[in-house]
Order: sequence, then structure tokens, then C-alpha cells
Amino acid sequence: MQQLGQRARQAARHMARASTGAKNAALLAIADALQRSEAALRAANDRDLAAGRAAGLDEALLDRLLLDARGIAGMADGLRQIAALPDPVGAVDELRARPSGIRVGRMRVPLGVVGIIYESRPNVTADAAGLCLKSGNACILRGGSEALHSNLAIAACIAAGLEAAGLPATAVQVLEITDRAAVGLLAGLAEYVDIIVPRGGKGLIQAVMQQARVPVLKHLDGVCHVYIDDGADPDMARRIVLNAKTHRYGVCNALETLLVAAGEAAVLPAIAADMAEKGVELRGCERARAQVPGMTPASEADWYAEYLAPILAVRVVDGLDKAMEHIARYGSAHTEAIITRDLGRADRFLREVDSASVMVNASTRFADGFEYGLGAEIGISTDKLHARGPVGLEGLTSQKWVVLGNGEVRT
Amino acid sequence: MQQLGQRARQAARHMARASTGAKNAALLAIADALQRSEAALRAANDRDLAAGRAAGLDEALLDRLLLDARGIAGMADGLRQIAALPDPVGAVDELRARPSGIRVGRMRVPLGVVGIIYESRPNVTADAAGLCLKSGNACILRGGSEALHSNLAIAACIAAGLEAAGLPATAVQVLEITDRAAVGLLAGLAEYVDIIVPRGGKGLIQAVMQQARVPVLKHLDGVCHVYIDDGADPDMARRIVLNAKTHRYGVCNALETLLVAAGEAAVLPAIAADMAEKGVELRGCERARAQVPGMTPASEADWYAEYLAPILAVRVVDGLDKAMEHIARYGSAHTEAIITRDLGRADRFLREVDSASVMVNASTRFADGFEYGLGAEIGISTDKLHARGPVGLEGLTSQKWVVLGNGEVRT
Repeated sequence: MQQLGQRARQAARHMARASTGAKNAALLAIADALQRSEAALRAANDRDLAAGRAAGLDEALLDRLLLDARGIAGMADGLRQIAALPDPVGAVDELRARPSGIRVGRMRVPLGVVGIIYESRPNVTADAAGLCLKSGNACILRGGSEALHSNLAIAACIAAGLEAAGLPATAVQVLEITDRAAVGLLAGLAEYVDIIVPRGGKGLIQAVMQQARVPVLKHLDGVCHVYIDDGADPDMARRIVLNAKTHRYGVCNALETLLVAAGEAAVLPAIAADMAEKGVELRGCERARAQVPGMTPASEADWYAEYLAPILAVRVVDGLDKAMEHIARYGSAHTEAIITRDLGRADRFLREVDSASVMVNASTRFADGFEYGLGAEIGISTDKLHARGPVGLEGLTSQKWVVLGNGEVRT
Repeated sequence: MQQLGQRARQAARHMARASTGAKNAALLAIADALQRSEAALRAANDRDLAAGRAAGLDEALLDRLLLDARGIAGMADGLRQIAALPDPVGAVDELRARPSGIRVGRMRVPLGVVGIIYESRPNVTADAAGLCLKSGNACILRGGSEALHSNLAIAACIAAGLEAAGLPATAVQVLEITDRAAVGLLAGLAEYVDIIVPRGGKGLIQAVMQQARVPVLKHLDGVCHVYIDDGADPDMARRIVLNAKTHRYGVCNALETLLVAAGEAAVLPAIAADMAEKGVELRGCERARAQVPGMTPASEADWYAEYLAPILAVRVVDGLDKAMEHIARYGSAHTEAIITRDLGRADRFLREVDSASVMVNASTRFADGFEYGLGAEIGISTDKLHARGPVGLEGLTSQKWVVLGNGEVRT
């Protein structure tokens, strides 16, 4: 593990000075290698699938594990898209002249070594490696044990592509130890790893957080809120609530608790009808239930719940302040939206709600790196330091100060 | 401690939405209160000084503890300067229109609650509180026990100023528990504290790092390097080395190890003469000693040393790559400078040296928030995430995503 860390650190120094051209050439060569190796990749994946079936994995897990022709083409396309993104590394902010005579600016540089810990989907191997490569970082990838053969086959293509472009193959290393202990080992390599990105369920993320001795880029929960403000357009409110709750249930930017200003509670029967059509269960406070007979009563636990399922908590609140209090108390600082026509309250919501993404008159489902224009996404962070919300290439970099002088000294 | 944390969290929500005008009014009112309260401040400081003398504190420590008329005026001036700085909070980056119809940007927001742990200098109380206040944060300050009366007297002026401006006095709380256990308590308040800034010696910073359950903004060492490149102007090299080493010895951006390209080793006798005149001891590698008879031999430990004293380690290296290898191996990622006439090597040094500040033809002593134009400095960080190098108001803020829509939903 120490050796692996040392190799990554060495590769990181090489990657930090790699040209944009070499990095893009590697990304395209990896994409080609993946498509050329379809037979080998599918054979490796078949071994994982057979072992998974023998171990009694359920269909959902086997489905996530599957790497078919479409999945392979998808990985290759993803890498080509990353190659087309601008290179963040080396960009220097405005250089400002200081009274002392020096000029001062900031240069964007890679973080160094990124550890990625993920679960069954083998495509994460190519996706995460591509983002680290483009941002000039080395990475150590620890995928799930059930996908090991698939991941190693993908790693062989990555190594071939890196070497074809004259870059060190050790810039992307896939751990062959896949048990839980490897999580602790990787998370504890403070000397050789600059940041850990866990991608997976809450259990995995909590395990990484507990063991990490380096910063972790993560979000634990996505208890997202929509607040329907006094005087909101009821049709817009219905449309956004429907989309935020039912577009996809199992995602972190899905709506989980709907807050409605008391004056607009009359919109609830229509929303309840929309939800009933989609098979979504409503759980409401007393005032919400007064509008929709038969609604399940919400308990305190419902306000904290990230259902990731066709269930929606509903609470009637006395205006904006109470809505923001609810969000501050029960929310997870991920994504919240207000539906309003009032400029002042929109502005207060934007300024005062302390979440990674705050929205006016839009669906929480937009909280996503592609939708925000980042081109790609390594993860979503609900922490305040470094990167917040959807994190793309820039979040895998840092800025150092550069000073240009002509022999100046301090007096 | 929990109550204190809760009060800080509540105050932080208030401060986050405070107007620039109110924050500046508070800063000016605190400055006035400090100057009006000179007698009370000096009486409180006398109590600390008397207790310090009785406890046998040495003169250097008593000197740091002293708060005289000049010190009080200095604190007040510092606060007025912070009031004059631009408010980082609320600024929104370019809003970009996305194909979906939403507009996306980032808004700068306070971090929330900042914990500051410091040692004997009481002026840090006003200085740190002022920076936190201007950046819209609440703060909890834990100063040294030897300065408790002084700190509480300053805190009374801060509370008066906050209240005069209609802001919550609990936005700045000074801990009355000053033993080491308080460090652990504050560093462990993960629910109520967003970041800890330790200001003081290495022992304090290590204690905070070990106990912190929240991010720590810090630098542990400043093992700064100057590298004299092949073909460098020898006069410029002498001037910069003299300034970087001898301008002040006890500061983190002072030069500690001088690296000289083998072709330029002949500059060493002149540098040795400059250093001898200032009483600086040189400790050199074999090749450095060949140039300067009588130089003390350097041991491996000297390359790692942050002397903070009139001692300079000197090593002759075979060009840029070896210099950068030395810095990567022994350095502390704080500040390094190259003296060169070669554009290509200057560029490689800037890009490849992985330190918070990298300089061309300038003294390492410039690594400072005021010299960089930040207007003020809460500390210097050698970590890569969030803020790097000198940290001013911006480093006490974060950016959240804002999305403006007209009813858009995701398809």
C-alpha cells in the first residue's frame, strides 16, 4: 500500500506538468482501447456476473454490474467528451501589480493524488480516471469486489492509453484488494493521497468519513426541499413538484419534503392528485391533511427522511421565515428551491438558505454537473470548504500563488 | 459549550444576511469603543501582566502580552482598515444561461462559525473578530489564559460595537475556559463550528490538528527555499538571499535552505560574507563547504529544519531538476523562490513546484496577505484544499450555486 502510494505520488508530479495535448491524446487512446477491447472487457465482465449470480446478488446489483456493448461505447464517449473540455491546469488569474513592484496572481494546479472508492458500476473506473487524468492528477481507484475482473480489464485499457501518450501508466492504479479493510488503508494514506472521493451508498460514505485522515469530497444526504411561496403560480408549482419528486426517485437531488405557505395550501389537492397518479404516498402535517383527506400523518422522522422512493413529506408553514427555519433544522444542505413571484423573497431565499444549491422557480433535479455546464461530474459535495455542490474538473484542482519580480526585496 | 455553539450558529445566520453597511458600522463602532475604553483595557492588561510576572513568564512573553496605547490604536486602525475593504459576501459570478433555460452562477457566502485558537497576543482578539465580522461569520475565540482579562475587556468593546450596529453580540464570543481542554472542546464542536484557525506555535497547531473534527486552516512549517539558477544575476541573488534570510528570523516566510546551481557556486563566498556580517551561521553540503572554508557541515536534519533563527542551510545542486527534487522531498509547501534569467526554467519552477507560493526573482518574505493585496490576513495555509497561502476575507467565505428559472423542469 505504501509502495502504491509512492508510485501515485511520483506519477502525480509527472501528470502535473503533462501538456494538455498529451492528456487529451491519452484520453482518446483509452477510448479507442476500450472499444477495441470489447471482447476482453465482456469476457471479464461475464466472470464477474457469473460469480455474482453464484453469490446470489439480486437483479438490481447484477444490472449495475453489467458492462455490455452500449456500456463500453458509453465509457469511450465519456472520455472523448472529457478530452473536449478545457484544461483547468496552468490557468493564471489576473496578475496584479503591487506597490512593492512584484506582480501577484494565482495559478490553477492539480490536487495531486485522488483516491476514489466506489461500488459495483464498472464504468466509474473509466469515468473517474478520465476526470483525474484531464485535471492533471494521479488516482488510486478502489472499486467493488464484485466488479474486480471488469475493473482490471478497464484498467489495462487505461494503462495502454496512458503509455501510448507517453504518460506514466501508474497515474491510474486500480486496487486489487477490494475488501472493507482497503477502504481504511486508502483513506488513511495521508502522506500519499490528497483527497478521497467516495461514490456509492450512505454506508460506504460513512465508512470512508470515519476512517479518512485526508479530506473527503462527499454528500451524505439529499433531503431536498421545494417551498411554494405566497402568491406563487400554482401551475408552475405543480409542474416543478411533479418533476422534482417523480422524474427519478433514487437520486440525491430528488424532492423529499414539500413546504407550502399557508395562503397557498389550496394547491395541495391538485398536487395530491398528480402524486396519486404516479403512485407517490404523501405524509403530511395536520394543516396539509386538512387539505387532502386521507393523507398519512407525518412524524418527526419524516422531516429528516431522504426517502429515495415514491414518498413525499408535506408541511404547511407560515411563510418564508418558517420555511427557511424548517430547511435549516431538517435539511441536508444539498438543494432547495422556492416557487415565487416575489423578487424580495426570492432574493432572501437565495442569500439566506445555506445549501450547496439554491434555486428560484426551477426543479431541484437540475443540481447536476452536466446541467450546470461543468461538462462532467466527479461527485456532489454538501460541505462548504473547497468545492460545493456538483464538482467537475475545477474541483479536482487547487490554486497556488505565483509572484513575479525583478529582484524585489521586502522593506 | 453546546449552548455557546448554538448561540454562535444562530448569530451566524443573522450575520450571513447582515448588510455591508451594518457590518462596517459595527467595525467602526468597535474601533471607537476600543479607543474610548483605553483606561479599562490597560487596567485589565495590567492584571494579566502582574499575574504573568508573578507566574514567572519570560520577558518575550510579557512583551507579547503588553497592550499599551499604541497597541490599542493599532487594533482600532486595523478594524477601520477592514471596514474599508470590499465585502466579499453576496457577490455572484457570471450567471450563465444553460440549454435547459435555467441560469446558473455562484454566490459567495460566509462559512458560518469560525473557531480561532491563539496564544498570548491580545490584539488577535480584535483582529480575528474583525475579519470574521466583515466576512459575515460568527466566531468563537479562545485566547491564552495569560491574556484572559485583556481579551474579555476587548470582547466587551466588540459586543458594544456589534449592538450599536444592530448586530447580535453573540456573533463574537470569547471563551473563558482557557486551559488545553478548551482546545479539544472547540475543535470537537463539529455541529457548531465550520472551520478552526489556530494562530500560534507549532505545539498549539499540532494539538488542534490532532483534536479537530472540523477542517483546520493552518501551516505547520515554513521551510522556505531560494534556488539560484544557472546564469542568475549574482547581485540580485545576494540581495534576495540577504532579505529572505535576515529581514526577520522568526517568521514562517523566512528563508531556511539556500539551493545553488553548481555552475553558480562561486557566488557563495559573497553570500557567506553577507551572512557573516549579520551573524548568520551557515551549514552546508560538501560542495558548498568547498566554496566557503570553515562552514559547518550540514546533516540530513538541517534540510528539514525550520530554524526561525540566524542559521541558513546551503546546498549545491546539479540544476533545476535536482533543486525541485530537494524542495519536494524536504520542503513544507509554504514558499519557494527561483533566481533566474531563463524564461523556460522560471516557467517550469512556477508550474512544477507544489507550494502555496512560488516566486521568480523576489524575496520569500513577500508571502503575506498585505503584500499580496488581500488587505488583511487571518492566517497562512499550506494545505491544498479551500484556501492556500495567505488567507484573507475570501478564505473565510465559500461559494454556493444559485439557479434562476422560470418554471423549468428536467426532461
